[in-house]
Amino acid sequence: MESKKIKIGLIGLGTVGSGVYKTLEAFENIEVVKIAVKNKNKKRNIPNLDETIITDDAYEVVSNPEIDIVCELIGGVDPAFDLIKTAIENGKHIVTANKELLAKRGEEIFNIAEKHNKVILYEAAIAGGIPIIMPIKTILAGNNITRVEAILNGTTNYILTKMDVQGASYEDVLKEAQELGYAETDPTGDVEGFDAAYKITTLATLAFKKKIRFENVYREGITKVRAEDMKAANDLGYKIKLIASAKMDEKGYADVRVHPMLIPQDSTLAHIDYVTNAVSLTGHPIGHITLSGPGAGEFPTASSVVGDILAIAAELDTTDYLLPMMRCRHEELAKCIDISDTQNKYYLSLNAKNNKGVIGNIGNICAECNISLESIVQKNVSENNTADITVITELCKECNMQSAVKAFEDSEFINSVNSLIRVQI
Amino acid sequence: MESKKIKIGLIGLGTVGSGVYKTLEAFENIEVVKIAVKNKNKKRNIPNLDETIITDDAYEVVSNPEIDIVCELIGGVDPAFDLIKTAIENGKHIVTANKELLAKRGEEIFNIAEKHNKVILYEAAIAGGIPIIMPIKTILAGNNITRVEAILNGTTNYILTKMDVQGASYEDVLKEAQELGYAETDPTGDVEGFDAAYKITTLATLAFKKKIRFENVYREGITKVRAEDMKAANDLGYKIKLIASAKMDEKGYADVRVHPMLIPQDSTLAHIDYVTNAVSLTGHPIGHITLSGPGAGEFPTASSVVGDILAIAAELDTTDYLLPMMRCRHEELAKCIDISDTQNKYYLSLNAKNNKGVIGNIGNICAECNISLESIVQKNVSENNTADITVITELCKECNMQSAVKAFEDSEFINSVNSLIRVQI
Repeated sequence: MESKKIKIGLIGLGTVGSGVYKTLEAFENIEVVKIAVKNKNKKRNIPNLDETIITDDAYEVVSNPEIDIVCELIGGVDPAFDLIKTAIENGKHIVTANKELLAKRGEEIFNIAEKHNKVILYEAAIAGGIPIIMPIKTILAGNNITRVEAILNGTTNYILTKMDVQGASYEDVLKEAQELGYAETDPTGDVEGFDAAYKITTLATLAFKKKIRFENVYREGITKVRAEDMKAANDLGYKIKLIASAKMDEKGYADVRVHPMLIPQDSTLAHIDYVTNAVSLTGHPIGHITLSGPGAGEFPTASSVVGDILAIAAELDTTDYLLPMMRCRHEELAKCIDISDTQNKYYLSLNAKNNKGVIGNIGNICAECNISLESIVQKNVSENNTADITVITELCKECNMQSAVKAFEDSEFINSVNSLIRVQI
Repeated sequence: MESKKIKIGLIGLGTVGSGVYKTLEAFENIEVVKIAVKNKNKKRNIPNLDETIITDDAYEVVSNPEIDIVCELIGGVDPAFDLIKTAIENGKHIVTANKELLAKRGEEIFNIAEKHNKVILYEAAIAGGIPIIMPIKTILAGNNITRVEAILNGTTNYILTKMDVQGASYEDVLKEAQELGYAETDPTGDVEGFDAAYKITTLATLAFKKKIRFENVYREGITKVRAEDMKAANDLGYKIKLIASAKMDEKGYADVRVHPMLIPQDSTLAHIDYVTNAVSLTGHPIGHITLSGPGAGEFPTASSVVGDILAIAAELDTTDYLLPMMRCRHEELAKCIDISDTQNKYYLSLNAKNNKGVIGNIGNICAECNISLESIVQKNVSENNTADITVITELCKECNMQSAVKAFEDSEFINSVNSLIRVQI
């Protein structure tokens, strides 16, 4: 089938945009006809870049009548939302890598797209190069997915891996990661778990086929994880990872969250190190699968953006209703369980006065809060006669654990509660 | 969009067929209208099975005018080839799990399908439940894939894992696997590497977008792997796995093979144990990804078959040219490199006379064959004054290594060549 060239408009020519431009050069049936950038004078490392198609007005891209597909690669809600909306209203299909926009206003843009019979594809928004969105929507469509556990942020996984390998503190490793360009000058979006929370919001929505609101995603970053916790976790047979997870229980309640977690050393996710990402899915009939690969970067992300472009391009001439399986409808809102009502297993690190009754005292406080314990280990008795105590609980309610933490803070036996990290079950 | 029910015909109601039937019950827009079986009187564990739609004449399925999609789940070349051909000629789309047919006669059936504007989907034929065919053809389509390394046979991976964990012999573990139903009474297809070779033939064809002939796939099974080799590999920092691999070199020559391989313990595939399968892909722009999950079984395989059915069903009413990205064309045949011309690193286990000159003698024979060595380790000097010697070579030509093996067999210093296994590079 001889077909005319598919015309692409790019919004954004940063790391991902450059990778997309370079990768698309290999495809004779695809042509980038307009590129919007913030600063037209910026020097770019793209050998074959056609400077004449560059504009600093993104509306020139979304309103260009020639363009079939608009790729939005600038991120953030504004002006991305309005640009995508305008592009759709002008008859363009959309490819985006914008996880924040999808998490916060996905419902709206998908409804606009559906109304105009356009598709929005976003493989690059979640787990970079790893094929996950298209597989869930197509070849895994026969499954009832009940659990997602994932490492979705390369920066925090790099930091935690380095802390583990080097025995270094969070602050020292963050500084090193910033120098190497793995962490931004303001690292908040990564280290406080926002980036992973955006991604799991969309991933859970897809997996459960019900809309998860970003506000219902519990979020906790890695800034309080200490070198001592990494060491204690290792001694107990665990690794500490920032895990984005989503579970659907039998009553139809979703539990979606991002927080540090102790995971067993023999689990697949425990071996996902540095900037690598991974997504584990559990469901019926598939059972359990894990997909791992590069979660960010110029070329891996370009792989996903270009894959989405080619999927649209392949059907543009063959049907008026493209990619039916890739449509998003979001008809139903998921019921979500509040973190305080969840059941978890915990790792707790306390500093206590080193006297005879302290272990019993810790046990008593837990018992009063309805918490059973798996182990209590005392170590590092210091010169000033204090001891570090590591507690692993059995499954218990989050609200009970929070009561126990308060009781420890009020107890005369306990000097400080150093860490409270959930353990994978 | 209100649409009529999509009508399915199943050929085969064994393990996979049963899983497919049970899984499809959840989909209101899909109806199984005819099922062909070998033995109509066989008792089956399918609670809601409609006995009236069962036939023992598979041609009743492929010629049934009501049916939109035929699922061929019997395996083997005959009569599957003719059934699929007839079904396509009768206007059916095809979903198959038949890796042998695809490897041996894929080109023909894809050409027939293309001629009749029908699609043949086969996610279940390779790596069971792991999404790999559809991802390669769709979301990874922008990539130039240069390397595939995979564990594609659950039976052999189970046997090798058990040999490793228990220190047991191949024969003992095979027997146990047969008793547990993980290996067949005649295990040849699995243990001699045929099953993995069928799968890598198709996977390499897809990855390289050039037809690989099954005859050009080098194949070696696991029957000669000894408990002593597993132990020696562990001591050297490796695991032994049956690896199906495909590489495309810069001159456009494909190197496709299945054989046991020593792989570093810190690699992802080293952690894929028991019946789990995994596929690692390397290419540009993606970099490196690994997909792992259940490679066989009633429900995981059903996940892939049902995913394929749903993909066809989704587009049946929206276009006359379904799933353009999933078409197979096989226009070009790949040039293949012969195993004797490949370069490999080797693990070699020799039993030698325990005298002073033996290490030097081994070194000399290797040097004469143009083989450089990484290490020679002597161990287990026995009562009858023989010693086991483990050699790891540097990269060298396969034909040189075969010459060296001959020279060892002729050498008066060497009692026997016990094992020769390639090492991952």
